[in-house]
Amino acid sequence: MKKNIIDLNSDLGESFGAYTIGRDEEILDIVTSANIACGFHAGDYNVMYKTVKMAKEKNVGIGAHPGLPDLLGFGRRAMQIDSEDIYHFTAYQVGALSAFCKLHQVPMQHVKAHGELFHMATHDLQVAEAIARAVSEVDKELILFGSSGSKIIKAGEKYGLQTVSEVFADRTYQPDGSLTQRSERNAMITDIDQAVKQVLSMVLKGKVIAVDGSEVQVEANTICVHGDGSHALEFAKQLRDRLSQEGIRIQRVGR
Amino acid sequence: MKKNIIDLNSDLGESFGAYTIGRDEEILDIVTSANIACGFHAGDYNVMYKTVKMAKEKNVGIGAHPGLPDLLGFGRRAMQIDSEDIYHFTAYQVGALSAFCKLHQVPMQHVKAHGELFHMATHDLQVAEAIARAVSEVDKELILFGSSGSKIIKAGEKYGLQTVSEVFADRTYQPDGSLTQRSERNAMITDIDQAVKQVLSMVLKGKVIAVDGSEVQVEANTICVHGDGSHALEFAKQLRDRLSQEGIRIQRVGR
Amino acid sequence: MKKNIIDLNSDLGESFGAYTIGRDEEILDIVTSANIACGFHAGDYNVMYKTVKMAKEKNVGIGAHPGLPDLLGFGRRAMQIDSEDIYHFTAYQVGALSAFCKLHQVPMQHVKAHGELFHMATHDLQVAEAIARAVSEVDKELILFGSSGSKIIKAGEKYGLQTVSEVFADRTYQPDGSLTQRSERNAMITDIDQAVKQVLSMVLKGKVIAVDGSEVQVEANTICVHGDGSHALEFAKQLRDRLSQEGIRIQRVGR
Amino acid sequence: MKKNIIDLNSDLGESFGAYTIGRDEEILDIVTSANIACGFHAGDYNVMYKTVKMAKEKNVGIGAHPGLPDLLGFGRRAMQIDSEDIYHFTAYQVGALSAFCKLHQVPMQHVKAHGELFHMATHDLQVAEAIARAVSEVDKELILFGSSGSKIIKAGEKYGLQTVSEVFADRTYQPDGSLTQRSERNAMITDIDQAVKQVLSMVLKGKVIAVDGSEVQVEANTICVHGDGSHALEFAKQLRDRLSQEGIRIQRVGR
Repeated sequence: MKKNIIDLNSDLGESFGAYTIGRDEEILDIVTSANIACGFHAGDYNVMYKTVKMAKEKNVGIGAHPGLPDLLGFGRRAMQIDSEDIYHFTAYQVGALSAFCKLHQVPMQHVKAHGELFHMATHDLQVAEAIARAVSEVDKELILFGSSGSKIIKAGEKYGLQTVSEVFADRTYQPDGSLTQRSERNAMITDIDQAVKQVLSMVLKGKVIAVDGSEVQVEANTICVHGDGSHALEFAKQLRDRLSQEGIRIQRVGR
Repeated sequence: MKKNIIDLNSDLGESFGAYTIGRDEEILDIVTSANIACGFHAGDYNVMYKTVKMAKEKNVGIGAHPGLPDLLGFGRRAMQIDSEDIYHFTAYQVGALSAFCKLHQVPMQHVKAHGELFHMATHDLQVAEAIARAVSEVDKELILFGSSGSKIIKAGEKYGLQTVSEVFADRTYQPDGSLTQRSERNAMITDIDQAVKQVLSMVLKGKVIAVDGSEVQVEANTICVHGDGSHALEFAKQLRDRLSQEGIRIQRVGR
Repeated sequence: MKKNIIDLNSDLGESFGAYTIGRDEEILDIVTSANIACGFHAGDYNVMYKTVKMAKEKNVGIGAHPGLPDLLGFGRRAMQIDSEDIYHFTAYQVGALSAFCKLHQVPMQHVKAHGELFHMATHDLQVAEAIARAVSEVDKELILFGSSGSKIIKAGEKYGLQTVSEVFADRTYQPDGSLTQRSERNAMITDIDQAVKQVLSMVLKGKVIAVDGSEVQVEANTICVHGDGSHALEFAKQLRDRLSQEGIRIQRVGR
Repeated sequence: MKKNIIDLNSDLGESFGAYTIGRDEEILDIVTSANIACGFHAGDYNVMYKTVKMAKEKNVGIGAHPGLPDLLGFGRRAMQIDSEDIYHFTAYQVGALSAFCKLHQVPMQHVKAHGELFHMATHDLQVAEAIARAVSEVDKELILFGSSGSKIIKAGEKYGLQTVSEVFADRTYQPDGSLTQRSERNAMITDIDQAVKQVLSMVLKGKVIAVDGSEVQVEANTICVHGDGSHALEFAKQLRDRLSQEGIRIQRVGR
């Protein structure tokens, strides 16, 4: 039987030097888990310090958000990269964020890969295992976030990590459980009623209705929401309120 | 009464991508503590992994070697930088290296600032305290390396850290205990006999003879040696052998 | 006798990858000269391409805006840097922007140093000459922008460059012709009437009234305006309109 | 009828900050064309200045050697990158090097893509055209280097550039004119006699004997030689001497 609990996570701490991205303070009032950039695809050491501080103050679960070493491409471009490299830079980034958790005397809750690295970790077992291994060796208590049904969830289990399956409120699903490509007309869900309905089904029944009307099983532990722009923020806020009204407890996944 | 023990430390892991600097494998056979670059002024995550591995295998004490964020200048150029920034990037770099110690299941022994940051930490109490605070908050067990009599030693004591005072075998001293500027004719000691004699005096008596013949008190816990080039390597090797022959125990400072 | 002509310049093309700074399209409707970042302190090759294109379309004079190699500090932090390095990186950045002018078949008009480099070039003759020499050797037709009465204006003249003296509409002046430090209470001019009055005096009479009431001679060829935020943009727009109404021709300085 | 002339080219200026790669001074005594890194995959503005200076003094043809923006990977890792980006960063890098040619009052001779970008330009027409277009728009007099029979040669012709076809002395060829993969046992030619024989056939007859014994037509205008390590340097020197003895003129391709 499914529990009526869900975590909301969002990418934070993506500002860099004089450059600001995201409305971190506002989104931290909505989400329960923060994926904090670690200075490779976004973020810097000053931003990391400040973001961990804010997350702690708002009692939001703190996670490392490692990405590809590509600030110019925001970690969204595919790169040919050895799994050894991924093992090493995941450790590096998780270690770096762990230091800020120590400065603020707050435990780190989780790790979620960013952008293209998240995509690679969903489909490529070697990448997934490199990440999971790094995380488990740095700190066995860390929770590993990944797409429901993805390779990274499998890899996390292999390395003895607690895993958390992520689903989407604003994306439609294919019969095989994958997300509809963004290039497709019906990829995005912009209607809040439809989004809430989809989440309720996923959380309470462990099922989502795919675009062809078929039922697909999903594991729904956390939902990814966005804080870039007032529209995204408003959508996230409404989603949280509506889920609460429907009796879902919005609660962080870990310690 | 002084003990007849000394640590030998050297900067390692300074290679980057396709670029190689230093003869790390050979210098690791000579020193007892390794200051490992953390990717800011030198080093990268692959080099860090490999260097921690080698240091562990050769039973050399592992230290983080944080530097200014300036790969092009190798961390040797002065930069106007807030002590808040220094507090943050020291934590970042120490945290990053700590992850590699966890991958290799070896404790981190110490932290030593690099280049211009080391220089700033010697003379500027605010910088020194920013570093010491970051180190102590990340891990109270870490030992802080600094110049004998410098601000960073004071700062380390303030934050409750064990400190280690560094002296030089190949540099002459001024009556006030500072090093003779490199631009001076008599700054460097190239004669191995003179170097050994200076070290013996510093280790056994806590004194060094300054360039004007006066005696200066120093605390001598570790000596900085270099591994760039065959001459430096040979000098370091001779120094180690000669000190051993004189009954000095070459031994790492920490766990 | 003074001419009733003034150029308005602004810093543009400061966005980087996924990061946006400035309202470039709007400010290009106000100014007559654009200082375009060259990828060292801000900007990237895609942004440079787009910004040169927009500037050309709006008939705004195109200038290279070289800065210190410090994206994290936005080129605003002092760095110890040899004048040889400055000579080299100024050439590099001016050359890089010149390529985009060639892609768009538009001449480059000018060069203005950014941030801390601008500050160094105002006060340090060696830095000023390194910049002026690089500019003159890359293209003798380029116009060199600098603070009225500064070292960079002298250096430009030495290397045979046309120079353009910059004054401020929104900053007060000291009796010696320098700007009042931003930390002072009366440093900024926020009243548009006062700003217009100051500019009219500078353009038409070559004089500015310092904070102590004394008259200071200035050369006023261009005014620096800002496009970050709606307030700055509105101020710039009002300044342009008011100066036009007062019979001042707003016109770019060069080809 | 073929001419008995060949150009020798090599990658130079790949050092960065404190990091040294290559024996540039020695290889410049052997080659007639230098491909100079432009600060993206290797090189920096100080190295570029010095390398252009040395190449001019030794009367070696100067070329820009643009690469992917990946210092850590030395421009050798595949990256997903738009052809628009490639068009822009090729212009940027060629423009940057052109500035150093102006400082030294020497014309730029050619452009050759580096590493993975060279590989992409060999096989992918869109990439090849992005590069050729950027080069032709920055300076129509520049000569474009590429693999014999590759897409970049076609693209260069489309954009009205003089092209130069590169062949290898130390690699074997497949029946379709491609190089044997490095992973194959017989990929490399280490015997100087065999290398000289292959080059003579390519230069004088426009033919190379493939690994299966078949004859393949090639256009041979330049040979790529390497200067990293004493073995490579010695091989390059012997090749040059032997070709001269066989009556081949070693001569740069352009102005």
